[in-house]
Formats: sequence, structure tokens, C-alpha cells
Amino acid sequence: MAQYYATLHCFQHPRTCVRITSSSLTDSNRRTELNMGSPTKESSLLGLYAMNGGGGQYSYAQNSSYQRGVIDVAKPVIEEGIAAKLDISHLSSTQTSTFRIADFGCSTGRNSFPYFQIITQAIEKKLIAEKGRITQIPEFHVFFNDQLMNDFNTLFRSLPPQINFYAAGVPGPFHGRLFPKASLDFAYCTCALNWLSQVPKAVADHMSPAWNKGKVHYTGAKQEVVEAYSHHYAHDIKSFLEARAEELVAGGLMALLVPADPAFKSSATSFTTPTEIDLLGSCLLDMANKGIISKQKVDTFNFPLYFTIPQELKEIIERSNSFTIERMEILDNPGKRTLCSAKARATYLRAVFEGMLINHFGSVVMDGLFDCYEKKIAASPHFLDPDNEKSIIIFVLLKRKAE
Amino acid sequence: MAQYYATLHCFQHPRTCVRITSSSLTDSNRRTELNMGSPTKESSLLGLYAMNGGGGQYSYAQNSSYQRGVIDVAKPVIEEGIAAKLDISHLSSTQTSTFRIADFGCSTGRNSFPYFQIITQAIEKKLIAEKGRITQIPEFHVFFNDQLMNDFNTLFRSLPPQINFYAAGVPGPFHGRLFPKASLDFAYCTCALNWLSQVPKAVADHMSPAWNKGKVHYTGAKQEVVEAYSHHYAHDIKSFLEARAEELVAGGLMALLVPADPAFKSSATSFTTPTEIDLLGSCLLDMANKGIISKQKVDTFNFPLYFTIPQELKEIIERSNSFTIERMEILDNPGKRTLCSAKARATYLRAVFEGMLINHFGSVVMDGLFDCYEKKIAASPHFLDPDNEKSIIIFVLLKRKAE
Repeated sequence: MAQYYATLHCFQHPRTCVRITSSSLTDSNRRTELNMGSPTKESSLLGLYAMNGGGGQYSYAQNSSYQRGVIDVAKPVIEEGIAAKLDISHLSSTQTSTFRIADFGCSTGRNSFPYFQIITQAIEKKLIAEKGRITQIPEFHVFFNDQLMNDFNTLFRSLPPQINFYAAGVPGPFHGRLFPKASLDFAYCTCALNWLSQVPKAVADHMSPAWNKGKVHYTGAKQEVVEAYSHHYAHDIKSFLEARAEELVAGGLMALLVPADPAFKSSATSFTTPTEIDLLGSCLLDMANKGIISKQKVDTFNFPLYFTIPQELKEIIERSNSFTIERMEILDNPGKRTLCSAKARATYLRAVFEGMLINHFGSVVMDGLFDCYEKKIAASPHFLDPDNEKSIIIFVLLKRKAE
Repeated sequence: MAQYYATLHCFQHPRTCVRITSSSLTDSNRRTELNMGSPTKESSLLGLYAMNGGGGQYSYAQNSSYQRGVIDVAKPVIEEGIAAKLDISHLSSTQTSTFRIADFGCSTGRNSFPYFQIITQAIEKKLIAEKGRITQIPEFHVFFNDQLMNDFNTLFRSLPPQINFYAAGVPGPFHGRLFPKASLDFAYCTCALNWLSQVPKAVADHMSPAWNKGKVHYTGAKQEVVEAYSHHYAHDIKSFLEARAEELVAGGLMALLVPADPAFKSSATSFTTPTEIDLLGSCLLDMANKGIISKQKVDTFNFPLYFTIPQELKEIIERSNSFTIERMEILDNPGKRTLCSAKARATYLRAVFEGMLINHFGSVVMDGLFDCYEKKIAASPHFLDPDNEKSIIIFVLLKRKAE
């Protein structure tokens, strides 16, 4: 039986990278002849990292008020965007159609459900406004996507008791294809595109000039490290856009809420999320210096996160050539005001990073690590004044170009 | 804000029955005016019971060889059915279409994946045979459905490394709507339609003539009990067919593999699954007589399972009026030959029923219950001869009528 190897979309962590074969084809030549495209959805098979599942003390569900804060500020721009830009010309004018919406990077859903409510209500409003053209409001089919290792059981069991859509969960990394061609009418991704598909290989390679020895992220690192991260980010966003361009119908909208840095230099007392990651990294170094974890473990660990700036993101999107930018603006996240104690800031980071840190350093050192972080935050009180938090959210509304 | 109450599809166990409100509608009158149908998918919110999750000693994944045996015998009839009856006239002749397939009652997937392989390969074969009409083979979008309490995490993480489809999970009871109107091209349901949506109310009601005091199922029970089960089964299958009739495209196929009893009387040494359930029930009664569990607990417990006979199922389907029966035949399950020890038979039942039994009787008594069952099986060696097992699988291939 003919087999072929698919590695192009192998976006997972090097540790878990496997060679994927497409063997379910009985005759790959015959498929090619029929122009079937790539039939193997290898990217949907692989898990990398996920927010803490369940509903416990350190769960993402209980510790995501920071991300939730984005909802309030995003609501009016999403509503305006849908009212002004949604194209419903492809929907049937006589039969009940299905309007398919996907959230890429939903985690366990607590912050995802409100977006669905905002989006479906805004779409309904738009559709009702066009009542003259269509006689049947479409039914909503809603897809919740996150990594294979995401806790979908908690997600499903947390579905609100009142929903006006049919729900489905879709496991797999969003840097690759997850849906059939032209099968989505609306896509969105909130607070997730700061995650890289993997750590840039060069920063973990001791032979590379970009080796990030003694550090775990790019803040304050040498230029080669910053460039490796930046380059990888551009590659990931390109992959994300290419996949969504395939999946969205022509004219379909995509709303992105991208955690980012402002384009200007911060003052000594201001900070952004990368500053916090750097502080967490300093705790790992402290523990290595005390012999609690090995230095080699720290040298081989890097956070797969990147916080873009508006101009950089704009250029990446423009290069992709599949979408038009319908609206782009910078939002200030009111969620930052919910983290007013050192403990709250430590628990917020723990809910997000613990799974990945346990994978590399083991679970035994987690309490010590986040205790250290909490103490460092408490010792630098400027972290507790939300006005010093300069992280931004970039809102981008994209429209899939017609082919 | 206008609200309304939806109870018609409230299929869950009485214990968990809640009143569902549809409050996400800003104006229900406006929706009615636009002929939107029922927007609240309340049936997708509720869990009832599920096979044992995970991959451990008593997991369904490790103890479902009985159900898996059906695959071999079903393969040729499914393949023939698709080759002879699949209607692809609704697919685009020029663009890549999506062909949507759903498995209703997939559990953690181990027995579901081979069906998808059989079905997608048979459909591909049919499509390739019609190559003259279409230039692009559709992409497959595949939906795995089971109860809300099903272990979808294990399901997703068990997806085979080679798949030729995009996968999604759909939580919720299949007796209600789970998909948008006319959004599925092919549906199937294997070894799941023997589950009732709930225990028939009358058999648990001490004021009813159908009260099933001192028993936990209908085998050997009074006629009113048998009728309550039979009536409820007919109602459930009708609901299932109504939901699927809405969800399938006109001409769409649905393959059912329904665990059932033969229509003839068994001999003293032959048995079927209801006989085994009755034996498990006798263990519960023994434990009640010994004071290990209360008699009241046994009186208020009944298995929500019914095993139809071919003529009964045929009549229910014919009454539904939405489907034509394209093929119907009785299959003998070779899986019965995989359970040749008392321990294997006990573990097989435990993987299926333990979750529900724990809910009612608590986990402490489970070891004792299944030890008792294993001993009773060992003491009645006719249970260990697979030739005495007379349970059947009814294969039905249905086609959605055009409206």
C-alpha cells in the first residue's frame, strides 16, 4: 500500500514530535488523480500543552479573570464589526442553513461561552435586519477547539444551561487544519495566538548562536533569541491564517484578540506579561542555583510564547494575502484590575503554565516555584498596581478574500 | 425578557431532571415570526450514564470485545449497503464538498474508529466509482457523539494516528437533536439503541400497577412492567428517528446495529443479555437480604435497557414515516466467543454498568456485587458456552425520505 510522510505540519513540542504516516489511503495515486488534497489531518492528532483542567484551586476555570476581562472591552467592537461587515449572501434564502462558528483555543470554555453569546446574538441581529432576503434564520453549529490535551470533559460539562446552538469539541493544534474546506462561516481566537506551536528550535540548541542558555524566554535575551522567537511567531501566524483561509467560506469573518506588547518602551516600573514570565524564569534560576533543579533542566526549557506588537502583526497578516483587514485596534484589558494581590498573580500564572512546567521539571517543585514567584511579586509592589501593567490586546477583524 | 420552558425533550434520569429555560433569546416572538424552530438544544446539556472511561482494568475500552465482535459481521453488510444505496446527488460536482458522518453512542471510541474506517472507505469507493460525475472527492467531517458524562478526553486521545477525516466530539443524549437541520450525510449507531433515555417512570412508582418491586429489570417481571419498558422503548426510538430525520439530508443513509433478542422462546440453558441483567439483579437482591444494601434501594433501581425483537423494531421504524428500510437482517455476534470465563463476563458487565450502579448504590459495594455475579456465572456453566448465548444484532439500513 502506498504511504507517504507528512511532516510539514508537525508543530508539536520536539519532545513529542513523531513522524506521521498517512496509511489510511488505499491508493494515494488515485486520490491525487481526483485532486483530493492532503487527506491526513496529522495536526489534529497531537497535543502540546493546555491550561490546567478541572475546576480546582489552580484550574484555568477558576483563574482566568485576567483573560475574561477582555470580553467586556471586546464586546462592542465585535458587535460593530459583525453589524458592518458580515456577509450573508452565501446563506440560502429559502431553506434553513447552518451557520458554523469556531473558537480556536477555547480551553475549558468559561471565557469562550460569553463570546459565543455575543457573536451569535450579533449575527442573529444582523440576519434579522436582513429579514427581507432570508425567510429562515440559520441554526448555529458551534465548535470549541483546543489542544488534544485540553480538558474537553470539563468544557462539555460546563456548557451553560441556556444555549441557542449545537455544540461540538474539536481537538488539535490550531496552527494546522482542523475543519473541512470552506466549512466555517465565522472564526475567532481570543487570548491564544500568543502561544507558539513549539519553542523555536534554535533557542534550545546549544550549537546555535540563538541558544538561550540560563534564560527561559526572550526578555532581556540576546538579539538572536529575540529574532528566533519573532521569526517563529511569524511562521505560526502564517500557518494559522493559511489553515483558516482554507476552512472559512469566501467572505467569512474572523475576529482575533491577540495578547501583545505596546510598541513603545516601558518605564522601569511598568511591566507586561513577558516581564512576568522573566520573573518566573528568575525563580527557576534561583532554584537551579540552590540545586533544587538542575541547571541543565533550565537551559533546555523555554516558554513557547511570544507577544507581538501591532505593526508586526499587521505586516504578517498583510503578507498572508488571504484576508483583508476590516478593522484593527488596540484594546486595554480591564482584566488586569482583577489581579491585585501577589497570590492572585501567582495563581493566574500557575493555572496557565503549570502543565507545561510539570512536564519539564516535575510536579514536586511547583509549590516552591510559585511561592518564590509570589514572594518576588510582593517584594516589587509596582506589579500590584494595574496601571503599571502595559500589556495590550490587539483586536483584528479579518475577512476571507474570494478566491 | 421573554423566556419559555422546554421539557418535552427532558430525557435524563429523574434524579437529575431539571427545568431548562431558554433565556438566550432576546425576543422569542421575533424568532417565531422568522420560523426559527426550537432554538434551545436542551437535550445536549444533560448527562445520564456512560460506559466506564479511561483505560483501566474495568474500563469500557479494555472490556468491549463483545461489542467489537459486531464489527466483523457488520462490515460486509455496511459496505454492500453503501455501495448499493448511497445517494451522492446532493454533492457538488465541481467544488470540494464536506461529507458529514456521525456516530451516535461512540463511548471512548475503540469500537467506533473501525466503523469510521469501514464507512469512509466504502463511501470513497462509491464516490470514486462515480468519478465521472464529480471531480473532487469530499472531505469527511466526522462527529463522535455520546452522553455528556462520556469520557471525551480518552476518546480524543485515542484517535488513531492515521485518519482521513476531521474529527469532532458531540456531547448529549441521542434521543434529542444534536445537529443542525439537514447537516449530516450519513449516521450510524451501533450497540447503543438498547439504552433507554430513562427508566420508565411507572416501574419506579410504587403507586403504579407497573411498579417493579423486588426486581431491577423486566425479565420475569409482571406484564405491566414489560409493557412499560416496551412502550418507553418505542417512544425513545421514535424520538431518535425524529431527531435523525431532522439532521440527515434527504436521501441520507443511517445504519443501525441494534442489540436485540431473538423472536423465539429460549430453552432453559440458553440465555440473552436480559438473562444476565436478571442474574446481576439477583445479586443485588441477595445483598439486600443480607443487609449490605437496603431493600428500598433495590426497589427504586431499574436498568434503563430494553432488547427489542426484529418485528417490533420494524414496526416502530415503519410508523415513523421519515425513513425507508433499505435493508434489514439479523446478525449473530461473534463477540460472544470472547467472553469464555466467568471473570471476563463479570468484567464486561462491570465496564458497562458500574457508573450507573455506583450512582445509585455507592462504590463500596461494587467489588462484592461483581464477585457475586462472577460466582453465579461460574455456578451455571451454560453461561460459558457461547452457543447458548442467543442475543442477536439487528442490522437496519435506513434512507431519509425526501420531504
